[in-house]
Amino acid sequence: MARRRYIFNTIEEIFRVYGYRPIETPAMENLDTLLGKYGEEGDKLLFKILNSGNFMDGLKEGDLKSENAPALSSRICEKGLRYDLTVPFARYVVQHRNEINFPFKRYQIQPVWRADRPQKGRYREFYQCDVDIIGSNSLLNELELVEIIDRVFRQFGIGILVKINHRRILAGIAEIVGEQGRLTEITTALDKIEKIGVRGVTRELEERGISKASVERLGPILDLGGPPEEKLTTLSDVLAGSETGIQGVREMARLFEYIRLVELKSAVQLDLTLARGLDYYTGTIIEVLAGDMQIGSICGGGRYDDLTGIFGLSGVSGVGVSFGADRIYDVLDQLKLFPQEVSTGTRLLFVNFGEAEQRYILHRILPYFRSSGIPSELFPEPVKLQKQMSYAHKNGIPYVALVGGDEMRAGTLKLRDMGTGQEKYLSKAESINLLLGRQVK
Amino acid sequence: MARRRYIFNTIEEIFRVYGYRPIETPAMENLDTLLGKYGEEGDKLLFKILNSGNFMDGLKEGDLKSENAPALSSRICEKGLRYDLTVPFARYVVQHRNEINFPFKRYQIQPVWRADRPQKGRYREFYQCDVDIIGSNSLLNELELVEIIDRVFRQFGIGILVKINHRRILAGIAEIVGEQGRLTEITTALDKIEKIGVRGVTRELEERGISKASVERLGPILDLGGPPEEKLTTLSDVLAGSETGIQGVREMARLFEYIRLVELKSAVQLDLTLARGLDYYTGTIIEVLAGDMQIGSICGGGRYDDLTGIFGLSGVSGVGVSFGADRIYDVLDQLKLFPQEVSTGTRLLFVNFGEAEQRYILHRILPYFRSSGIPSELFPEPVKLQKQMSYAHKNGIPYVALVGGDEMRAGTLKLRDMGTGQEKYLSKAESINLLLGRQVK
Repeated sequence: MARRRYIFNTIEEIFRVYGYRPIETPAMENLDTLLGKYGEEGDKLLFKILNSGNFMDGLKEGDLKSENAPALSSRICEKGLRYDLTVPFARYVVQHRNEINFPFKRYQIQPVWRADRPQKGRYREFYQCDVDIIGSNSLLNELELVEIIDRVFRQFGIGILVKINHRRILAGIAEIVGEQGRLTEITTALDKIEKIGVRGVTRELEERGISKASVERLGPILDLGGPPEEKLTTLSDVLAGSETGIQGVREMARLFEYIRLVELKSAVQLDLTLARGLDYYTGTIIEVLAGDMQIGSICGGGRYDDLTGIFGLSGVSGVGVSFGADRIYDVLDQLKLFPQEVSTGTRLLFVNFGEAEQRYILHRILPYFRSSGIPSELFPEPVKLQKQMSYAHKNGIPYVALVGGDEMRAGTLKLRDMGTGQEKYLSKAESINLLLGRQVK
Repeated sequence: MARRRYIFNTIEEIFRVYGYRPIETPAMENLDTLLGKYGEEGDKLLFKILNSGNFMDGLKEGDLKSENAPALSSRICEKGLRYDLTVPFARYVVQHRNEINFPFKRYQIQPVWRADRPQKGRYREFYQCDVDIIGSNSLLNELELVEIIDRVFRQFGIGILVKINHRRILAGIAEIVGEQGRLTEITTALDKIEKIGVRGVTRELEERGISKASVERLGPILDLGGPPEEKLTTLSDVLAGSETGIQGVREMARLFEYIRLVELKSAVQLDLTLARGLDYYTGTIIEVLAGDMQIGSICGGGRYDDLTGIFGLSGVSGVGVSFGADRIYDVLDQLKLFPQEVSTGTRLLFVNFGEAEQRYILHRILPYFRSSGIPSELFPEPVKLQKQMSYAHKNGIPYVALVGGDEMRAGTLKLRDMGTGQEKYLSKAESINLLLGRQVK
C-alpha cells in the first residue's frame, strides 16, 4: 500500500507540474453508458448494481425465467461499476462540455472493477492511472506526453524504450500494398514481429489471405532500420501514393523534431510495427517498454479523434496515455528500485520505560521529531523491552530510541540502528540530523 | 477536487508523522459482513452487486415472486459496496490477525456508498477519513488522537473546541440517579442540552419516564462548570457509589493531565452531556466543533472495547476518530481558509505566438519552471491572444507569460499578473522567485 502510494505520488507530482488537474468520477455509472463499449466479453465482466428499493417492482411473473437472465439483469440493475477510466472520462467531458475550458488537461487515478475470475496478478479491483488532453489537435500535446513519460521513469530510475507510430502510416501501408480494407489483419500480424520475426510475419500475413504480391511490397518497410529521420525519408517515398500515409509521415517527422529539441533521457523509436489494438486510436500511438525487464508494456496510449462521439459530442480530438501501475510496481520491486523509506511508515520508535520517561518523551522529545517531519511514535505501554523491540523489528522501523533516567539527566538519546545493532548516544538535534540523512558531525 | 485533495493531504501528512500506516480495503465486501451492522435502515441503504455469470442459476420458478424480493436479493447478490470504513476495518483486522503486529496504527481514506435519495449535500458516494489504534488499552492513544486533532485543525487554521467525555461516567450517572438500565434515554436527552437548555432536558427526561427524584439528583451534574479538574473532583464525590463511574473519572483525570502536559493550541473541554449515539463506544468519547461556525461535529470518535468481537476476535480494544471531510470543506470554504494555490493546478501559462516562440519556450524556458516545481504550461496552439488569455482567466491561472521576438532577444519574460492586470519584464530567475513567493529584489 505504501509502495503503491509512492508510485501514484511520483506520477501525480509530475502531472501537476505540467498543469494537469485531477478529476474523479463516481464508481457507479449508468449501465447504458458502459454496455457495448468493451465488446461482448467486456459486457459480461461488468459488475451490475441491484436497484435499491424493491428491485422487482414492475416485473411480471413471466419475466422471471432463468432463460431471461441477461435481459432481466438490465431491468433490475440501472447502474454498474466502472470498467476503465476512458469511457467515464468521455461521458464526463460530454456532460460538462459547457463548463470545461478546452483544451482540457486532466489526470485520473482511480480503481476499476472487472468480474474476472480472481487469480495471481489479476484482481477484481485494480487502479488505472490516465492522463489526457482533449480539445486540441496540436502535436505539442503528444510531445508533452512523451516528456512526461520520460520524466516519470527517470524519477523511478527505470530505463525505458518509448515506441511511437502513427495510425495513418499503418493505413498508408495497407493502402500501398493494396489491402486498404484489411488494416486490422495487417497490424495484428505486425504486432508479433518481436516474437516471430519478419519471416513469421510474412507467413502469417499470407495465411490471413493477404496476397503474395502485397506481402512482397511490405518487405522493405519491415526491414527499415536507422534513426527515425531516415525511416521517415524512406517512408515518404514508399507512401508517396497515399495521402493518408503522407499525413502520418509528416506528423511523425514533426513530433520527432520536437522530441530532439527537448532532449530526453529515454530512447525514443519510430516503430512501424507498433499497432496497439484499440480501435479508437486514429493518430499517434505510443508504447513504453522497460529497458531491463521483459514484462510487456508499462505505459501506452495514443490520439483518438472521436472518443466522445458515442456520447453525442463529435469533432473533439484528444490524446492520452495510461500508466500501468501494477507492472511498474513489479519492475520497481524486481530491480529493487523502491526507495528504502517507502516500505515503512514510522522511522523511529521511542521505547516506553514507564510513567516518568513517557511524560518526558511526550513533552520534551517527540514534538521536535514530528515537527521535523520524522514519522515517530512512542510505544503506548511500558511493557517488556523485548516486546517493544520486536514491534519495531516486525514493523520495519529502522531506529529505536532508548530514553531512561540516565538519558533524561544527560539530555541525550540512546539511538539503536535496528539494521546493524549499533547504539550511539546522541543529542536531540544530532538524532534528527541522522534520521533526516544529514551528516552528523 | 483539488480542494478535497488539499484536505486529505494535510490530514494524511499528520497521520504519517505520528506513525500511522495507510490501508485500503476493496470496495466490495461479502454481504454477510455488512448486513445487520448498521440497523434495519442501514441494511436498506446497502448497494448490492448482482452475481456475475448467470445470477439465476439454482433459483426455482417459485422463488421469483415479487413478495420474495428481500430474500431473493441475498440469493442473487453475494457482495455489496462498503457502507463505512469501520466494519471493513474490523473484518480486515480479524482476517489478518496473524500478520498484524499489535498495537496496530492505521488510517484509511476511501469512499463509501449509501443508497440514500440524492439531495443537496448528500451524495451516494462520499469519502470517510478514519484513524485508529487497535490492540492497546493505554490512554496515551487517546492523547495522541487529541494531539492529532489539534494539529490538523491548527494546520487548516480552523479554531476548534474538543469535547471529551467517558461512557463509564455516563453509566455511573445513570446508576447513581437510579436508572441504570436507561442509559440510552438519559444520553439522548443530555445530547440536546445545547439546543434546549437544562430545563428542556429535565422536562424531556421526565417525559421519557425517568422519575422526578432521579432527575433532581441529575441537576447538580448538569450544572457543573469550571475546568475539567474541578468537574472531576466534584464527580468523584457524586459518583463515589458507582465503581464504573469512578473508573471513568480516573481515566478522564489522567487523560486531562496528559493533555495539559503536551500544551495544545485548541480548547479541550470535559463535557458531561456529550454522549455520541453509537452503541459500540465503551470508554472515552470525543467530538470536535468548529469555533467560528455552527455546523455540527467536524470530527469525532471514541474507544470501543469489542469492535472485532462480531467477527470472532474478542478482547481487542481500540480507539479511533473520523474526520468529516465534507464539513471541513464547508468550513474552509465559508471562512475562506483554502490556500489560494489550491484552487487551481497551473500557476503560469505561456502564450503561444507561433512556431519559433514555441520552440524557444519548450527548449529554453519551460524546463526551468517545471524543475522548480511550478505547475506551468504552454498553450498548445498559436491561436488568437484573446482566446489564450480567456483560457488562463477561466482556469484561474494567476500568471501569464508573454514571450515574443523582443523578449527572446532580450532573454526576458513579460509576466502578467492576471489578478491586477500589471505587467513586468523579468528574467527567468526573477519570475521563478516571484512565482515561488520569494522576494524579488
